[in-house]
Parts: sequence; C-alpha cells; structure tokens
Amino acid sequence: MKKSLLFLLLFLPFLSFAQQNDSTNISNIYKAALTKSDCYENLRFLCKNIGPRLSGSENADKAVKYFEEKMKSYGFDRVYLQELKVPVWRRLDQAKAEIVTTKTSVNICALGGSVATPSKGIKAEVVEVKTFEELDQLGEKNIKGKIVFFSRPMEPTHLETFRAYGGAVNQRGGGASRAAKYGAIACVVRSMNLRTDEFPHTGAMRYDAKFPRIPSAAISTRDADLLSASIKKQSTQLFIKFNCDTLPDKVSYNVIAEMKGTEFPDQIITIGGHLDSWDLGEGAHDDGTGCVQSLEVLHLFKTLGIKPKHTIRAVMFMNEENGLRGGLKYAEEAKRLNEKHLAAIEADAGGFTPRGFDIDAPAAVVSKIQSWEYLLKPYGLHEIEKGGSGSDIGPLKAQSVSLIGYRPDSQRYFDVHHAATDVFEAVNKRELELGAASMAALVYLIDQYGL
Amino acid sequence: MKKSLLFLLLFLPFLSFAQQNDSTNISNIYKAALTKSDCYENLRFLCKNIGPRLSGSENADKAVKYFEEKMKSYGFDRVYLQELKVPVWRRLDQAKAEIVTTKTSVNICALGGSVATPSKGIKAEVVEVKTFEELDQLGEKNIKGKIVFFSRPMEPTHLETFRAYGGAVNQRGGGASRAAKYGAIACVVRSMNLRTDEFPHTGAMRYDAKFPRIPSAAISTRDADLLSASIKKQSTQLFIKFNCDTLPDKVSYNVIAEMKGTEFPDQIITIGGHLDSWDLGEGAHDDGTGCVQSLEVLHLFKTLGIKPKHTIRAVMFMNEENGLRGGLKYAEEAKRLNEKHLAAIEADAGGFTPRGFDIDAPAAVVSKIQSWEYLLKPYGLHEIEKGGSGSDIGPLKAQSVSLIGYRPDSQRYFDVHHAATDVFEAVNKRELELGAASMAALVYLIDQYGL
Repeated sequence: MKKSLLFLLLFLPFLSFAQQNDSTNISNIYKAALTKSDCYENLRFLCKNIGPRLSGSENADKAVKYFEEKMKSYGFDRVYLQELKVPVWRRLDQAKAEIVTTKTSVNICALGGSVATPSKGIKAEVVEVKTFEELDQLGEKNIKGKIVFFSRPMEPTHLETFRAYGGAVNQRGGGASRAAKYGAIACVVRSMNLRTDEFPHTGAMRYDAKFPRIPSAAISTRDADLLSASIKKQSTQLFIKFNCDTLPDKVSYNVIAEMKGTEFPDQIITIGGHLDSWDLGEGAHDDGTGCVQSLEVLHLFKTLGIKPKHTIRAVMFMNEENGLRGGLKYAEEAKRLNEKHLAAIEADAGGFTPRGFDIDAPAAVVSKIQSWEYLLKPYGLHEIEKGGSGSDIGPLKAQSVSLIGYRPDSQRYFDVHHAATDVFEAVNKRELELGAASMAALVYLIDQYGL
Repeated sequence: MKKSLLFLLLFLPFLSFAQQNDSTNISNIYKAALTKSDCYENLRFLCKNIGPRLSGSENADKAVKYFEEKMKSYGFDRVYLQELKVPVWRRLDQAKAEIVTTKTSVNICALGGSVATPSKGIKAEVVEVKTFEELDQLGEKNIKGKIVFFSRPMEPTHLETFRAYGGAVNQRGGGASRAAKYGAIACVVRSMNLRTDEFPHTGAMRYDAKFPRIPSAAISTRDADLLSASIKKQSTQLFIKFNCDTLPDKVSYNVIAEMKGTEFPDQIITIGGHLDSWDLGEGAHDDGTGCVQSLEVLHLFKTLGIKPKHTIRAVMFMNEENGLRGGLKYAEEAKRLNEKHLAAIEADAGGFTPRGFDIDAPAAVVSKIQSWEYLLKPYGLHEIEKGGSGSDIGPLKAQSVSLIGYRPDSQRYFDVHHAATDVFEAVNKRELELGAASMAALVYLIDQYGL
C-alpha cells in the first residue's frame, strides 16, 4: 500500500481542493481508527464478558442491552430498539458420537434447528453421499433405517472461499429432509471448513414439512475423513447422541444508533452487522466484528468532528443466523415509515484485512463507487466490484436501496465460522480497525457525493 | 478476487493463444498449490521437529540437513550446499527483570549479539528517551551509571507495518552503543511490536567498537508501558539479569536446489528465503514460510510438468538475522563463477495472504512486470510497485540483477516477528500456499518472457 499512498501525497498539490480534502479526511479516518478507536475493546467485552448469543438466549438480551448503553454513552442523536420476534433453538448438551465399527470417538455438533436424538442415541449403518443426485439414485432401498453422511468438501481451489461455501452448504441446510424422504433416521454433514481439524461447525438447517424431522449434525473435517475411510473399507456403524429443542418465539431487538444529517436528514445511509451468533464460539468474526466496526464508523465521525449531510445509522441486526427476522423487520419498518435509504452497507464476512466492497446496485452506482478507487486503494481496497452484499440488508433491495458488502480477505474465515474457534483471540486488532476505517471512508464518500 | 477471475474466464476466447495459455498455466499453479503442495507439512516439520535455528546452532545444522534431503527426495537436477562461516551467539538463560521501585516483574530478553549482565545482574536508575537526539541532549551527566530505556513505539498509523518498523528499529540496532557513549551501564529497548502484549521481541544489535559493550535487552510492549508509567511518577530503578555469549565463527551452509533451463540453462532465476531464525519462537513466519514457499515453487513446476527455459534455483540462505553471511556468499559465488542472474525473488515478510511484489530494478523491468497484472490480480496480487526486495538477495544488486520482494499482507507480521509467538500455529495453510503459488506464477512469467 505504501507506494500508492506516497503517490497520493506527492500529487496532492495537483488534485482539486475537494479531492485534497477527501484524501486528508480519509487519511484522518484511518489514523483515528488505528489510534483512538474503541472497536477492539468493544469486541473484547462482547466476546469475553457476554459470549455466544444465539437468538432468544439470555446472552443475546445482554448484548442488546450492552450496545444500547454503549451507543447512548457516545451521545449519538438517537439510540433506539426495534422490536421483533425471534425463533428460539437451544443446544442442551454436548453431542457424543462414535464410529462404532472402528471404536473411534468423533466430534459432532447438532445443527441449528435440529431435533434431538432419542435419549439413548441412534446407532445405525452409515451411507455416504456427495450429492443429492447420488442420494436420489440410491433411493429408499439403500437409505431406509440408515444414517446419511453428506461428505462433499468445500472446494479448496476457489480463491474466494465464500464460493466454496456456496458450493457445499446445501448439504447442511437441506440434507436432513432430502435423506428423510428416503427413510433415513439421521443425517451427518461434513463441517463447512476448508481446514482439516477437530472442530465441528454448526449452522442453520431447515426441515421440509413434507418429510419426518430427523436429527441432523455436523462432523469435524478430521472425523469426516475418518468416517469416509472406514466406509471405504467396510460396512460402518455410527452412534450419535445429542439433545436440543425449540421453544416458542421470543421478543428481541435490532439495536440502532443514528447521527442526524445536516442537509438531508431524511436520507439514510445504513451500516450494520448482526448481533446474534452461533453458540459454539464467541461470535467474534461472525459477526461481532461487523457490529463493532459499524458502531465504530459513527464513533470515528464523532471523534473527528465529521458532521454528515445525510443521516447515518449503525444497525445491529438480530437473528441473521437462523431466521433473518432482524433484517426483515428493518426493511418492513423502512417501508412503513416511508424512509428514503440511500445505501446500506453490511460487514458480515469476518474482521480480516480489507480487500474491497461488493456492490449490488445499478451499473451507474457501481461505476460511481469505482471512481473513488484512487482514494481507497492506498488502504488496500482494490476489489470494488458488482456482487452480493449481506443477508440482513438484502430485504431492503425491494425498496431499490443500493446494497454494499464490505469484503475483507476471506482465506481464514471458514477456519472459525460457526465453530468453537470463533473467539476474540482469532481477531487481529489492526485488521479489525482497518475494516472499520474502510467502512467509514466509504460512508464518508457516499455522504459527500451521493450515489 | 472472484469477479476478476470470472472476467478472465469470460474473455478467455478473446485473448491470444499465448495469453490463454498463461492464464491456464497460472490457474493450474494455484490449483496445485491449494491441493497438492508440500509447503505446509514442510513448515510443520521445520517448526515442530527442528524448531528455532539461530546461525551456528545444532538446530541450524539439522535444518540444513533436512532440506538438503528433502530437495534430493524431489529429484531436482542439482542439490548442493554452499559453505560459509557464520557468527555464533547463544542465549544461555531466560532473562529476569523487575521494576524495583514498583516491585513489578517484567518480561525482557537479551538482544542478539549482546554481552551478558554480571551474574548478579544490574540494578540502576532508568532514564527514558524516545530518540538519539534526546539522549545527546541529556548527555553524560544524566546518563552515566544508569540504564537507558529507548521507548519510541512503532508508529501505528503507517498502513505498511515495515515502514513503522523502519522508524523504530535503530533503537534496537544501535541504542546500546549510543547509550554507552555517555556512560550508561545497560540499555533496554521497547520491543518492535505494534500490539500491546507480554512478549519481548529479540533481534540483532551491533556494538560500535569506540564504546564499552553494555548489556542490551528488549522489553515487552506491555511492560514498556508499565516502565514508562513508573518513570513518569517517580525516579525508577530497574533490575535486569541475563546470560549469553559469543563463540568463534562456525561453518554453515546455504542450501540450494536447481531445475536446469531447457533453453537458457546458463541464465538463472533465484527464489529464496532464509533458513536461520531467532531463537525465541519456531521461526515460522520469519522465515520458515519463505523457505518452504521457495522450495514449493520448484515442487509445483515439477508436479505440473512445467519445464522452465531458464534455470530456476531455490535458495535457503543462512544467517540473514545476524550477519547476512549467506546472502553475501551467494553473490560472491555468483560473481566468481560469472553466473548470469536474470532475477532474484525473496520471500521474507511472513506467510500471510498475498498482496503483490516490490521490484528493485530499472523502470523498464518494473513496467514489464506490471504489464502482467491482468494475469496476477485475480489472485489478489494488486500491489506491483517499485520498492525494496530482500536482505539476502540485496548483495546481487552490484551484479545488476533485477531484485523482487514477495509482499504478503503486513498487518499481523510484527505480532510474531522475533518473538515466542512466531510458531507454526500462527501460519494459515491457505495463505502460505497462495504465497507459494504467487511466487511460482511470477517465476513462470519471468521464465516465459524474460525481463
């Protein structure tokens, strides 16, 4: 990055006053982020003093309260909660599992939304498949009464790891019902993890109402390999046992802070992440970082005395992981109140070193943002392209809002995603702060020039 | 990265045959690196079965032997050792230190090259300075008989962390003799670390023959802050105690593997890292990664059946950390044998996610490499700029060799640099493999088109 920064400094005299001013303001945003930001300490509190916070849990309530108070302490123009109902799924024990045939204990976890196994567990022969097509071909005669093991790994050769995730995650989301259709009594899915390790990765699964609800779990990548190896050699029995349940929906909240715009107070730029997390780690990268970075954008503006022309909102969405109720509620309220949203930016890809932004908006908007690249690339933001944005802001699309996803480097994300490894210590302070600054720089430019 | 990759695939039909071929070959290099490379397991062995390997140590000998055998096992055209003499400095105990005034035990380590303290340690008042100018102003009357504490931190606002290192490291390298000039009896330097933590970071220091050799240590950033706080409040005494010594120079080796060029066997492209490491961690990022990545370039060529036109050499240089004898020897031999070196590439900035290359060569060479950017940026290599290269290849500059430094992301590097935290676990497999592929892609292009 250093050379392009030097370039900017050398050519500063030749830039227009507005360009110089932008360059200086963005430089100040990065400097403040790296020396005066609160995001790392806010993340530490969220991870270490609150911890995992699945929708409907006591910890989720604590997180709502913590950030509501933190936002108030910064003295923003408005801090408020947006009430909604969330589904409540609970993990009630640590799952047990064994490859009975080889007497190997293996690490599994119930997938979010799964029913429990019977209290004595399930022991049955395992049938391994890599695709739903394979499953269909095997049919009821080969599947009935068995445990189906979905073993297709994330494709390691995709540079963009989210693409590898997209290519494997249907096994987790829909595998159980697909298997139940043919009489399977449980299903186990290879964890969505590019690394070979001992940690099972949870995540949402959904039942198709047409088929019986069978228990569904993720198995660590290391143990998925062991299970495959056993199946290759011999008919293999697996034992699994776990307890979990679903309670009635519960009240929860989106947590929102606002800085009023000086010129266009009715035009809103939203930045956000999701406050709920899976229950195995501390929800650090997913998505504590997105929450504290979004809040930091407002905090940086405040610290630097930047008074935005448009209203800037930091939103911590509730229930991204297993329902998206927060994102849906936010869009519903925006519509009901006839709010005008200029842009919505979401950070939900981890707190890693910045790479750029993906933009889900008309070509003219993409071009406009790309025209700011000379101001952003000195900070490592080279990848500004048309693409997807974020789950929570997705529902705003129907209101023609320009949607933007903050894109940090993706190589390490699936090492921790939805697993016990997603803890505060996995986040690097500077990478987190640079992400907050990157979002603040983009918000600054959108606020200056519109879209 | 994904969008630019898609772009390449879509426009493949419009590229010339040579361009298509390059694109396919580079894609295959990345695929092989992410699925069939040995570099992660080679690094594991180097870190876990050998460990730290300071020049002249038994472990350094083991590392030489390990890689010589590993290179032979790959069946390269030639594997050989280049003999040289290295300095031998040894840490003989774990340093002890206390802020006597506040009764706080603090973490320090002897700097490489330092003399020992007397066996009963040194207890004296501490004088804190941030710059050599400050020291000069204080002069003998304020310094004599005291311990000088150099406390200037690395500047956190530099995006490129090596720039922050460059702005602080003169305290470590030259602080002791500067302080000894005014009668100081020891010196303590704030660790070269951007993070606040409890780990002291070692590194080379040199004595100026004009002044007495006084013991010189690094103090962890956390403890540097504690020491500053105490000094601010009151006259502060520090106790330090450590043992280390310097033995006569010893024989050691550069370890070299070669694939002979099919068209220009006398023209050489060198890729390398340094095999020696500091003694506190496992020398993982510094510079185990550079060694295994360089070797992997040859291994990838072999795996893919790429027969280079020019001779490609992977060099593991000895003694970068405290003498540069390996780099000097390599250049000396190149000159003696009248070798023609087309380019030399060094990886000595950690095994993090790829960002680009810095090129120390005439403008025409820089432009030529930049003209390949469309082939490299789908893999995150956006920063291809004129700049520094690497210590070990530096001595080749006198022979007008084009020098190139591989540049991974720099944000996390100084968390581990020269400290006990530089262990195998701090390296991400994919980031390491992508680095090896990035170097292989560049070597492939230089080999195809010259410079």
